[in-house]
Amino acid sequence: MRYLTAGESHGPQLTTIIEGLPAGLSLSAEDINQHLARRQKGYGRGRRMQIEKDQALIMSGVRHGKTLGSPVALVVENKDWKHWTKIMGAEAISEEEAEEVKRKVTRPRPGHADLNGGMKYGHRDMRNVLERSSARETTVRVAAGGVAQKLLSDLGIKVACHVKEIGGVTANADHISSAEEIRRLSEESEVRCVDPEASEKMKEAIDQAKKKGDTIGGVVEVVVEGIPAGVGSYVHYDRKLDAKIAAAIMSINAFKGVEFGLGFEMAKRFGSQVHDEIAWSDEDGYTRKTNRLGGFEGGMTTGMPIVVKGVMKPIPTLYKPLESVDIESKEPFTASIERSDSCAVPAAAVVAEAVVAWEIARAITEQFESDRMDHLKDSIEQYRDYTKGF
Amino acid sequence: MRYLTAGESHGPQLTTIIEGLPAGLSLSAEDINQHLARRQKGYGRGRRMQIEKDQALIMSGVRHGKTLGSPVALVVENKDWKHWTKIMGAEAISEEEAEEVKRKVTRPRPGHADLNGGMKYGHRDMRNVLERSSARETTVRVAAGGVAQKLLSDLGIKVACHVKEIGGVTANADHISSAEEIRRLSEESEVRCVDPEASEKMKEAIDQAKKKGDTIGGVVEVVVEGIPAGVGSYVHYDRKLDAKIAAAIMSINAFKGVEFGLGFEMAKRFGSQVHDEIAWSDEDGYTRKTNRLGGFEGGMTTGMPIVVKGVMKPIPTLYKPLESVDIESKEPFTASIERSDSCAVPAAAVVAEAVVAWEIARAITEQFESDRMDHLKDSIEQYRDYTKGF
Amino acid sequence: MRYLTAGESHGPQLTTIIEGLPAGLSLSAEDINQHLARRQKGYGRGRRMQIEKDQALIMSGVRHGKTLGSPVALVVENKDWKHWTKIMGAEAISEEEAEEVKRKVTRPRPGHADLNGGMKYGHRDMRNVLERSSARETTVRVAAGGVAQKLLSDLGIKVACHVKEIGGVTANADHISSAEEIRRLSEESEVRCVDPEASEKMKEAIDQAKKKGDTIGGVVEVVVEGIPAGVGSYVHYDRKLDAKIAAAIMSINAFKGVEFGLGFEMAKRFGSQVHDEIAWSDEDGYTRKTNRLGGFEGGMTTGMPIVVKGVMKPIPTLYKPLESVDIESKEPFTASIERSDSCAVPAAAVVAEAVVAWEIARAITEQFESDRMDHLKDSIEQYRDYTKGF
Amino acid sequence: MRYLTAGESHGPQLTTIIEGLPAGLSLSAEDINQHLARRQKGYGRGRRMQIEKDQALIMSGVRHGKTLGSPVALVVENKDWKHWTKIMGAEAISEEEAEEVKRKVTRPRPGHADLNGGMKYGHRDMRNVLERSSARETTVRVAAGGVAQKLLSDLGIKVACHVKEIGGVTANADHISSAEEIRRLSEESEVRCVDPEASEKMKEAIDQAKKKGDTIGGVVEVVVEGIPAGVGSYVHYDRKLDAKIAAAIMSINAFKGVEFGLGFEMAKRFGSQVHDEIAWSDEDGYTRKTNRLGGFEGGMTTGMPIVVKGVMKPIPTLYKPLESVDIESKEPFTASIERSDSCAVPAAAVVAEAVVAWEIARAITEQFESDRMDHLKDSIEQYRDYTKGF
Repeated sequence: MRYLTAGESHGPQLTTIIEGLPAGLSLSAEDINQHLARRQKGYGRGRRMQIEKDQALIMSGVRHGKTLGSPVALVVENKDWKHWTKIMGAEAISEEEAEEVKRKVTRPRPGHADLNGGMKYGHRDMRNVLERSSARETTVRVAAGGVAQKLLSDLGIKVACHVKEIGGVTANADHISSAEEIRRLSEESEVRCVDPEASEKMKEAIDQAKKKGDTIGGVVEVVVEGIPAGVGSYVHYDRKLDAKIAAAIMSINAFKGVEFGLGFEMAKRFGSQVHDEIAWSDEDGYTRKTNRLGGFEGGMTTGMPIVVKGVMKPIPTLYKPLESVDIESKEPFTASIERSDSCAVPAAAVVAEAVVAWEIARAITEQFESDRMDHLKDSIEQYRDYTKGF
Repeated sequence: MRYLTAGESHGPQLTTIIEGLPAGLSLSAEDINQHLARRQKGYGRGRRMQIEKDQALIMSGVRHGKTLGSPVALVVENKDWKHWTKIMGAEAISEEEAEEVKRKVTRPRPGHADLNGGMKYGHRDMRNVLERSSARETTVRVAAGGVAQKLLSDLGIKVACHVKEIGGVTANADHISSAEEIRRLSEESEVRCVDPEASEKMKEAIDQAKKKGDTIGGVVEVVVEGIPAGVGSYVHYDRKLDAKIAAAIMSINAFKGVEFGLGFEMAKRFGSQVHDEIAWSDEDGYTRKTNRLGGFEGGMTTGMPIVVKGVMKPIPTLYKPLESVDIESKEPFTASIERSDSCAVPAAAVVAEAVVAWEIARAITEQFESDRMDHLKDSIEQYRDYTKGF
Repeated sequence: MRYLTAGESHGPQLTTIIEGLPAGLSLSAEDINQHLARRQKGYGRGRRMQIEKDQALIMSGVRHGKTLGSPVALVVENKDWKHWTKIMGAEAISEEEAEEVKRKVTRPRPGHADLNGGMKYGHRDMRNVLERSSARETTVRVAAGGVAQKLLSDLGIKVACHVKEIGGVTANADHISSAEEIRRLSEESEVRCVDPEASEKMKEAIDQAKKKGDTIGGVVEVVVEGIPAGVGSYVHYDRKLDAKIAAAIMSINAFKGVEFGLGFEMAKRFGSQVHDEIAWSDEDGYTRKTNRLGGFEGGMTTGMPIVVKGVMKPIPTLYKPLESVDIESKEPFTASIERSDSCAVPAAAVVAEAVVAWEIARAITEQFESDRMDHLKDSIEQYRDYTKGF
Repeated sequence: MRYLTAGESHGPQLTTIIEGLPAGLSLSAEDINQHLARRQKGYGRGRRMQIEKDQALIMSGVRHGKTLGSPVALVVENKDWKHWTKIMGAEAISEEEAEEVKRKVTRPRPGHADLNGGMKYGHRDMRNVLERSSARETTVRVAAGGVAQKLLSDLGIKVACHVKEIGGVTANADHISSAEEIRRLSEESEVRCVDPEASEKMKEAIDQAKKKGDTIGGVVEVVVEGIPAGVGSYVHYDRKLDAKIAAAIMSINAFKGVEFGLGFEMAKRFGSQVHDEIAWSDEDGYTRKTNRLGGFEGGMTTGMPIVVKGVMKPIPTLYKPLESVDIESKEPFTASIERSDSCAVPAAAVVAEAVVAWEIARAITEQFESDRMDHLKDSIEQYRDYTKGF
């Protein structure tokens, strides 16, 4: 499985092509759209999120509700495109028209791709950068992840996300035991947090940041349940599944860190307090008494839930602006504001869930026979039985 | 650039093939061996590290001190191989001989690849797993990284590592300003820590863990200096260089987390305290007043040093053993000890440095014309000038 | 550079995403559409070709006539989609509706993917196979190739195709010296053949085949001019550019062979009659007296034109039907007819041109600095000068 | 499965690392060495072939006769290395020593990689090119192919090669029906030809060429038997297995063309004479009455034997020398002779067999569950049953 995405933030559409799906997977637009809607929710989002309700159109690879095995193209149209045809049109324009198009950006915003991207690709109008580097692109990553989640769900693998921390407010989630509960509780919270008390404090923190014209980031957690042991591999460094998940998380806009299980806390503990002892029973086969390692040993799953966290930095576009330099005049200025979310962490949790789901689905389709969904189901079922009896 | 590694811990040799190097790079065995020696040092290492001094043999791709452009094969022989020919030989053996070979492992150690790997590959003798999943493999990753470092060094890019934390003891490294200083100071410390006071405390912590029959982990940091802005790309999620570095770090044995710049700390700060404002001067071009983001925006370098940390869990092989289950008898037992390092963090720092160097070198050779070292130098020099004048 | 394609023959649209293009390439829909039109021409095509005039819509990656460096999504809509919504819709349908949808295919056609694809993906309605395995998909391969051709053209590299043989009738093309002439003359011929006399005979052969209810295949040739020496590499087997071109040609629907220069003829000649002697002059640098090897030595370009041929088998869908077996009844039958082209070779030449152009563009962007079109131009210009003075 | 190779023709050793093999495959050095020996035989080979008998050493990934699932490193040492340490050593040498080393090559040989490779990598001593571009590298490709053949053999898939044509002399092989027979008969012939009469004529042709100081090429054929239908895929152009095989064949040194089944002959036939009609019987399931397409439809196997041919040009190193130009003096000269094979086609057949075996094994391990050899066997067995009952 592989996928490419395309599309600028204010272009006509976002597109993704997903190649390598099994044939015979039941898939509807709604399977995807529910996740697009989840991505759009979240306390502290700015105006744009309200006006557009993203909808995925299935343009190929699915017939009469089932995947064909051929590539799946998904399109999310930009409802606001009519206002951007001149600014973002593909057609060449004259010098005069170019003058008229007001949205030229010569002022790189700190914390964005603007300046580095402008230098790399030789764009002196940094709109040519920011339109693609925008987190708008994550819409189709969530769409691809939605397809992956449908596949995993049919294999008995559940994926959920929640917000662990926003602006220094930490959720107490230790009592939550299952992916299902995480999904249910987090959906009830405006900040996608399973701890109602912390939810309220997070909202306050967001309000406060907004009042100050500032922004806040946070920590999201993704949990994957029901994955058998031995997915991924230790035999070569680039086949370790935790490493692939780390890359996927880190490739989300604004993410700056990732950790499994106890993560950085492990630097403070003794070995005897970090590893997960192995038990065995006739009914369950091998189990672990704890899950401090977050479901991975040696780049492979242990059979325990995967627990991975990622940290998102605060959105760099502030009302309280940062200093920068105009690339034409070389004069300093304080950076302009393109949009006004003060916290995007709840939405980012959904993106993190999507990219993790994708990596798991990819690993599973690589490891098991995956031309057909029914064979894949049987393969995994047999493997689960086998590992129990190992 | 790409590379594969091969070799079991007690097999005849470790091997790596590096494909895609520029022609005309000056390269000697010593360029590599210095890093192998650095990897073998470190307070708290067990016996094995002392008996073998690793040496890389260059088996192809280099002639008269210069790379040819053809693949470079490196071999690190196992000095102890003569004692392992029976246990680890490639030749088929009879049932009786198999009986004699005493080292069959049926007791999976928590925190290792043993159990998951055994189930995955169907190995009931888990020596078949642990021989490859061993951190011994990082020897050739360091060798490949050593080649990458030589390349980077010739382009004016410096890479260094140091230990930030061991067993809860944190180094104060804020006053250290350059990769060169980090390299120099860390080499003077038995725990590869730039803060002499913290060094002593770390050694105490290691001694204490050892006394308890326990182990401790820690945090390492890699710094890359002199890399121009705009390396990596925001245009597609899988081309973000920070994500590739995250995967590389996470793929090191026992690493469980990775962060750039302020990392997880960003969840506690306001946006105005997280981003790096942009300045400009005639002499230096664009610069940043701070480097909180650790050298990346939008998956691309900013021109500031790359600063990335990784957390290593304590070694799972303890004198104070963890509970596990024998896969034959299904009886519980407390896990056996294969080796006795109580802290491998200083060595792991060198591995982290190597894998980061590799990713940087790969990104640079992909982005710039890299068939020949002289052209690559010129390309980067021109690009540096150009970004200054942007 | 990489691209994925998606789309079924009678689905709503074909889609391609092209990732890795340089920024700053001038690109219009017309640059692509001219090639789509060329693909649709050709003596001996059936009805479908007439009703649809393919048009590529640029959905991302291009702004105001220039590429942005971000992925380019191209869409070719199916003009006839309204008649197929029920048969090919993505939505799930009820059992009764399924009954109504008449187009279920249980009779695999020899020479098509039907039977093998049905077995592989578990499709008992082989429409689920044939919709994707159809040569309709080559439309977007031509679109992607059109983008590659624009890029090459701006670098002074010309690509052209012509038909060498149809149904045993061979063109005399030895007097044709340049890609430009090939393009011009082949465009004048209804069978895309540069030899007017052979053109007439080829048309006769097509007419004759049609009259018999039979089909014929042929040989196409692609010529690439202006590519410098040393593109591709001998250092590793999977980096040889001629091998990549061979795969690209062979991956076109119905292609069964590929050869460079004299190709299979070389089995009949002495070495002294096969190789291209090297000459040198002050003005031109190194040149070759002949081009029997078709522009490649050691997997690299020689600086001479690339000359590659591919053979296309006759279309397997005949009025004179082939025997097959119904997969439900297991009864033999003579295969049904879905469409009625009697010769698709002229169109296939355009597809071959497109896929060769893609491989060349990919090799060049990999070898030279290619984030920006202007840098790429300079890089190649410098390299051309350098090779002349070598 | 993937593999890298390394090594110069006169360097200390050739090396390959094979990654992704199933665990539990029985594998001995002899499984590989038999193919290395086959590659070294052949009427018309020069002196070098006699002095070295290639032997593969298994350096990792195999224990007690079974693969571990970890990477397999194979080494073939150069028996003649002691005479080349100075000329080909990795260590830097002084200017004077460089003067002494006599073997500097400034005269590019037409038909070799010398000139293009020299320009590409900036080598003015073209020994730096020819040492790697030499067909000596195919030794380890045959080694990797030998491992693939062992895997295939255990799955009931047989691979064989033979020589169809040398210097215009064509073998009559139409009566040969099985891979086993091809293997047996071809091994009996000094030119690896199954037709004894043609064998004699081929040897005469080789003698004649030698007498003239000239060389001849030929056509080799590889046959794969026992592969189930539906391996490979039509859903995306780069997943077509015939295209991958085409690339593999074309990447062999000196190969200039490849064709499946009737190949270029198809340009001369009617559709009704080209395709393979489908039959069905209770015992055998689906079969084909003919195998004109060489085992592929839609980029997938049909279940019939794969039949692929490749053409090898005559060796470019002739006693009857070709004109070239010294790159230092720019003076014309007639090219020097490094070795003196007059026909390498029989050896090349073995190489072709190896690379085809590799592609098949790779396709199969990708398509079926392949962590373990026993699971892989079961998977394929089940799939074979299923396709029969389809």
